[in-house]
Amino acid sequence: METLPEQITLAHGAGGKQTSALIHQIFERHFKNTLLTADDAAVLPRPEHQIAMSTDGFVVSPAFFPGGNIGELSICGTVNDLSCMGAKPLYLTCSFIIEEGLEVERLDQIAASMAETAEKVGAVLVAGDTKVVGKGQADQVFITTTGVGDVVSQNPLSGAKAAPGDAVLVTGDVGRHGCAVLLSRDEYGIDAQVESDCAPLWKPVSAALKAAPDLHVIRDATRGGVGTVLYEIAHQSHTGIRLKADAIPVDPSVAGVCGMLGLEPLYLACEGRMVMIVPQEEAQAVIDALAVLPDTQGICQIGEVTAEEPERVVMETEIGTQTYLPEPGTELLPRIC
Amino acid sequence: METLPEQITLAHGAGGKQTSALIHQIFERHFKNTLLTADDAAVLPRPEHQIAMSTDGFVVSPAFFPGGNIGELSICGTVNDLSCMGAKPLYLTCSFIIEEGLEVERLDQIAASMAETAEKVGAVLVAGDTKVVGKGQADQVFITTTGVGDVVSQNPLSGAKAAPGDAVLVTGDVGRHGCAVLLSRDEYGIDAQVESDCAPLWKPVSAALKAAPDLHVIRDATRGGVGTVLYEIAHQSHTGIRLKADAIPVDPSVAGVCGMLGLEPLYLACEGRMVMIVPQEEAQAVIDALAVLPDTQGICQIGEVTAEEPERVVMETEIGTQTYLPEPGTELLPRIC
Repeated sequence: METLPEQITLAHGAGGKQTSALIHQIFERHFKNTLLTADDAAVLPRPEHQIAMSTDGFVVSPAFFPGGNIGELSICGTVNDLSCMGAKPLYLTCSFIIEEGLEVERLDQIAASMAETAEKVGAVLVAGDTKVVGKGQADQVFITTTGVGDVVSQNPLSGAKAAPGDAVLVTGDVGRHGCAVLLSRDEYGIDAQVESDCAPLWKPVSAALKAAPDLHVIRDATRGGVGTVLYEIAHQSHTGIRLKADAIPVDPSVAGVCGMLGLEPLYLACEGRMVMIVPQEEAQAVIDALAVLPDTQGICQIGEVTAEEPERVVMETEIGTQTYLPEPGTELLPRIC
Repeated sequence: METLPEQITLAHGAGGKQTSALIHQIFERHFKNTLLTADDAAVLPRPEHQIAMSTDGFVVSPAFFPGGNIGELSICGTVNDLSCMGAKPLYLTCSFIIEEGLEVERLDQIAASMAETAEKVGAVLVAGDTKVVGKGQADQVFITTTGVGDVVSQNPLSGAKAAPGDAVLVTGDVGRHGCAVLLSRDEYGIDAQVESDCAPLWKPVSAALKAAPDLHVIRDATRGGVGTVLYEIAHQSHTGIRLKADAIPVDPSVAGVCGMLGLEPLYLACEGRMVMIVPQEEAQAVIDALAVLPDTQGICQIGEVTAEEPERVVMETEIGTQTYLPEPGTELLPRIC
């Protein structure tokens, strides 16, 4: 077996001996499970119900940030997308596009984070692919993860199901991931400690589905943040959404950074926060079930769905004034996830 | 709805209005089907048998080459990987990582090719993701496709099942994809007409499985070519493989280019060729079934599996001399798929 050098070379992506060495010494070592074979595709037990399938590409810069790295992020993103459809994550695949020169040690850390995060939700990495491109043809490492889940929720979940009177919940304080990545870019000279909220949320989602079998919508507030997700739901369901400004949980450090840079926390990416829309009579049961779990302790109601102002998100301030939350437009922060 | 500009900007990857415009006007337009929704994951009917799952990243440079483009390639690669496990391709996802500045017209052509290729095998694109990175942070466009298939073959296929006495078949002339991409790089000043063999092969694989229910191995000879695949199979099954040099089909133009550049056609990538390993008594049935299909007309036997020389590939020349095929090592051609 070839030993791995300190840095990835083009030969690691060419399909020969060096590719085998990389696969054995990094990916197989961390991802080892009985479903991962040397064949062209994994052959897997059939899930019990309908299957959910989702894919997500990760290009976050920098690849390591306070509270996580691109590997952890790539598993959380796909696990959370499946969870949003009421699907227990079962099988994951990952495709790496690596820039020549990446330190092997970094790739090892990324793979270790991926394995650890997948294990937290009981999902397994069943197939992968590695390509290497020349220096300057990619930015360190890009990862695409795809997941298959077993749709265990009895009622289908969809953004189209939000209905007037429903409670709008968020599972914790908003904008931490976007803020953490921003600060780690060292461009702003702001000395604040903010960690990403990055977390795989199948367990809390599963608890929410048990507490409120008639849950209408679950959506993870990644790229574009909670504000973008609320607009998507308003459009899909042709309803309005009214938020109480003082109910929106924002970490004081995040609020401070946003104040300095003129950013709206509702548009900063989260990677471990769900928006849940649930009949008002079931809202408290969801809050009670999730407030005791580590990644969703901060769950709270931030607003409600309305028949008025369809397809708009309205923010009500403490003194009773109302403004439209501006519809997300041009990009605020590229390469945040 | 925003109109699309001529070139992709960072805003097309930020998750807001411009991302929606790109999705609606390019991806939804080409991929439209009832399973593709605006939710976080597609919810899909459960396949009938075990499921197969495979992922592949595509970074080919240039993205357009004689006989295909990165879009067609990205579907063929994943469809063929599923087919190799005896799985009918059902569901595909695609993740685009796009360099700022890519012409929208090119992306449209790529998406059109993807839709057309998927349709040929009856697979549907059920989910996707788009990220945009800055100028110089990627090379035009990278695509990762992942597929789920229904394992319809009665006997499991695996590289480990190759057995002494088995016939080694290849479904057509070798090395055309690698050669076509190489020539399209304009670095060599060689004036030869070679088209990629790029093709989705579920139909011929399905025909082969009907003709020879006891088929042992199917493997698509992509990165690393037929030579690499044969070494992988020899290692997995602890057998030897003996090839007849004069039986290996090589297009005269490919042979000419390889002669000039000192390349071995067995190590050039194919994207529409399978290696099939089948009990000798079933070999003719497979050849007869595939010789009448458009993408596998050139099927032929190139050698046999042996108990001698385990884990080696031996090449026998016309005059009876024997040489070991060198084991694939450092990269010949980066970014070929």
